[in-house]
Amino acid sequence: MMKISSKLLAILKESRSFLIAGHINPEGDSIGSCLALALGLKNLGKKKISVISKDPVPENLKFLPASGIIRHQLPRGEVDAAVLIDCNSMERTGFSSFKAKKTVIIDHHLLPASTAEARFFQSVSASLVDPGAAAAGVLVYRVLKALNVPIDKKIATNLYTALLVDTGGFRYSNSSPESLKTAFHLVKAGAMPWSITKDLYENIPFRGVKLLGLSLSTLERKDGIAWITTTKEMFEKTGTSAGDCEDFVDFPRKVKGVEVAVFFRQAEDDLFKLSLRSKGRVNVQKIAKAFGGGGHAAAAGCKIRGSLEDVQKRVFRVLRKALTETGR
Amino acid sequence: MMKISSKLLAILKESRSFLIAGHINPEGDSIGSCLALALGLKNLGKKKISVISKDPVPENLKFLPASGIIRHQLPRGEVDAAVLIDCNSMERTGFSSFKAKKTVIIDHHLLPASTAEARFFQSVSASLVDPGAAAAGVLVYRVLKALNVPIDKKIATNLYTALLVDTGGFRYSNSSPESLKTAFHLVKAGAMPWSITKDLYENIPFRGVKLLGLSLSTLERKDGIAWITTTKEMFEKTGTSAGDCEDFVDFPRKVKGVEVAVFFRQAEDDLFKLSLRSKGRVNVQKIAKAFGGGGHAAAAGCKIRGSLEDVQKRVFRVLRKALTETGR
Repeated sequence: MMKISSKLLAILKESRSFLIAGHINPEGDSIGSCLALALGLKNLGKKKISVISKDPVPENLKFLPASGIIRHQLPRGEVDAAVLIDCNSMERTGFSSFKAKKTVIIDHHLLPASTAEARFFQSVSASLVDPGAAAAGVLVYRVLKALNVPIDKKIATNLYTALLVDTGGFRYSNSSPESLKTAFHLVKAGAMPWSITKDLYENIPFRGVKLLGLSLSTLERKDGIAWITTTKEMFEKTGTSAGDCEDFVDFPRKVKGVEVAVFFRQAEDDLFKLSLRSKGRVNVQKIAKAFGGGGHAAAAGCKIRGSLEDVQKRVFRVLRKALTETGR
Repeated sequence: MMKISSKLLAILKESRSFLIAGHINPEGDSIGSCLALALGLKNLGKKKISVISKDPVPENLKFLPASGIIRHQLPRGEVDAAVLIDCNSMERTGFSSFKAKKTVIIDHHLLPASTAEARFFQSVSASLVDPGAAAAGVLVYRVLKALNVPIDKKIATNLYTALLVDTGGFRYSNSSPESLKTAFHLVKAGAMPWSITKDLYENIPFRGVKLLGLSLSTLERKDGIAWITTTKEMFEKTGTSAGDCEDFVDFPRKVKGVEVAVFFRQAEDDLFKLSLRSKGRVNVQKIAKAFGGGGHAAAAGCKIRGSLEDVQKRVFRVLRKALTETGR
């Protein structure tokens, strides 16, 4: 386990005013980890704490304790310490810069590849970046324990949510012993898994489930690839929007024998947003990159312009090639 | 935590031949727990171990280590010890009786209400019945630790599967500190969450996802109730059967604002099998019981004869009454 530098702990202990920021398009790990750190610092007697998010807090995360404190604009004046959580570049925060005496990073993503971002990372005062951690929430838990902050029910609820989201309910390969031991301590401290689950996952708008039904009816499969499509017509028919189909790509992925799943979302008449998922054999980040997108080896995305037929032809050609190359 | 009786441990230590049985319609907790105990006893040097299941092992559980040893008929002759796991009555095993010198029960369900079943339970040699345990797998883990059996990767894989299934990925209210601590030890012992998940959940037949799409298009909602229907026509169109729609009721349950979800599966022209799920306010066991069915407070089922319209009218009338009585 990566050690927390004494410098990082000293900055958190000695600073009096804080700015805590997660990443754009925030999910449970980003929001939950930011709020847990804010609550922990408050328990340490800190009074000036701003939590900011460029993008709105998703509806299903508004139940998180203290989520009401999140603001979408930078506070005026300079803070003693800015803390970036679940990201390690300014770009990912959605803001251009922070007025802060010191900057700290707590993250579990790989370090950025671009020169500008790497330069920013090297300029920060202290960091805890551990790609081996299941969630940023695991790292915030480590930091709070190192600061001797008691983990109360509010903190535990935020962090259990972070862990649940990033491990897919302790199903993904990042479900490490540490993540489960942390989860154990969080439930012991008062996190209530079913109450969290109801708010987080059992709160899908009626229209969203209707859209899922329509989209699943387009399911097709060929050569280890399965895909579904959501068209503009379906959005119109159900009164839905892009936010209603965030996990749709999981459904073709669950199909037996499938190596790669693709979700095609029609953004404009001749523009499709693709979500790609791999079960391990193909690196879909490379596929997405070939079309100007990005992501991870197992989950990536890109946009392709053209008719649906044309877009599918182009991406399937590249995918089939990758599948052949990794063929068993 | 309930103590394991020394008598139970002595029976397992001293017996030389074993019969291990789970329940009918077995799922991950039943099969995984039976296999884990069998593997553990084998590690203790026991040679004569039969694991039996009245019903076939579901396709998505055949990956479980040692699942090949499961038989569907009783072995000839008498064994020293029969062990019932994840059930506490003969009826639930699907067999009428076992030829065994001693019978042991390891279960986490409430004890049976019927006189005959209660009499059977009182007749067994030893039992560990703890309704506070998240899964039978947690109890088998406790027993194996008490017997000083080393937890190897095969045992850990069976037990992690048991826990994952019964806690819904550590989301349900039974996701106790003990269940998470056990999961921590299992992953440390070699259980691989993503590998298990791929076999368990990412192996849905193509036709099953097609059927889900058709069924979701029937989604309706009224007065805190949401429901979907799968008709005989849909089964025929997709070449599917009842086993392909086991978790369909989860989808109406996830709809925002819903208190009770109902899944109607057409079994015959005028016979519907209902699955009911409650988010907490209504005890759906009572509803199912009113129609001759059964289950738990949060998950129950029954069969009702009639046209779909008629069946829905009847069950919704009872449900609306229950919702009014518990109204807030």
